[in-house]
Amino acid sequence: MVLDHPWCQVRQDEIELPNGKIIDDYFVNIKPEVALILPITTNQEIVFVRQYRHAVGDFFIELPAGGFNPHQESAEVAAVRELAEETGYITQQVRKIATLYDKPSKDTNQIHLFLAENVVKVKEQQLDITEEIEVILIPVDAVLTKIAQGEIAVAGTVAALFLGLNFLKASNC
Amino acid sequence: MVLDHPWCQVRQDEIELPNGKIIDDYFVNIKPEVALILPITTNQEIVFVRQYRHAVGDFFIELPAGGFNPHQESAEVAAVRELAEETGYITQQVRKIATLYDKPSKDTNQIHLFLAENVVKVKEQQLDITEEIEVILIPVDAVLTKIAQGEIAVAGTVAALFLGLNFLKASNC
Repeated sequence: MVLDHPWCQVRQDEIELPNGKIIDDYFVNIKPEVALILPITTNQEIVFVRQYRHAVGDFFIELPAGGFNPHQESAEVAAVRELAEETGYITQQVRKIATLYDKPSKDTNQIHLFLAENVVKVKEQQLDITEEIEVILIPVDAVLTKIAQGEIAVAGTVAALFLGLNFLKASNC
Repeated sequence: MVLDHPWCQVRQDEIELPNGKIIDDYFVNIKPEVALILPITTNQEIVFVRQYRHAVGDFFIELPAGGFNPHQESAEVAAVRELAEETGYITQQVRKIATLYDKPSKDTNQIHLFLAENVVKVKEQQLDITEEIEVILIPVDAVLTKIAQGEIAVAGTVAALFLGLNFLKASNC
């Protein structure tokens, strides 16, 4: 471990390539697993969160998501919890529709993607002191245009939207 | 800078939240910009690369991509170069179709996505000693099935495929 802080863990590995060469400076970012949820209301609107992202220094519209420790809760529980905390919406039914990866060369985590239909707002957000999150509803029919215009641009969210909407289209056929 | 190695740079920032609270341990991964290219042959096949990704410890099918320094080359030049180096295919025409983000909360980089039609194989791969890359052709019509089956699962590649195929569909209407 070359960096071992609660918010950032970096490991330096020594690895042997298939050709036998040894590399002693392969850096791996040890990341928490990520639960990502695509919540759709009974009015066919998708529930997004908009917040400032410091590394890039701009505001982004993303699906609700958060890190979790698989030894403490399941991906499904984490997805439902993040939805409730970040937006105040709850869901009676979630379905896992995909496992994605952010950057499998450098980051250890998977992204566990869930679809939640008929979500309902029942309470206020419960945010950490470090979070300031705006909830935005966008009609399902308008989402592809927002992506094409670059207003929704985080790869995990974009992949999740296409996957989820394709999954729903296939289910309804 | 808490970690400053050619292959891994981490910065520890002190930031002020909108509520005035100061946090002195916000870690940012300083990453090179990424050029990502969706190459389509005249036979309507997409050119993928398959390689071992050490952080997750498995093989992944992804679009050709690579990091670049914007002070040394443009995103477009980097995309065309990565395609040639990783696959041996070249292209006469690339179009930028989107700017995406991996993880804007933690990683500084953008992903510059290009579409290249009518790519042609003219030479062998030119790989670094650390790279071992298999070139895989998948028909355009088969890609959505591969994504739904989880065989293509890296978020940036999945987002790029949906964006690129939607872009082509819109251009042909």
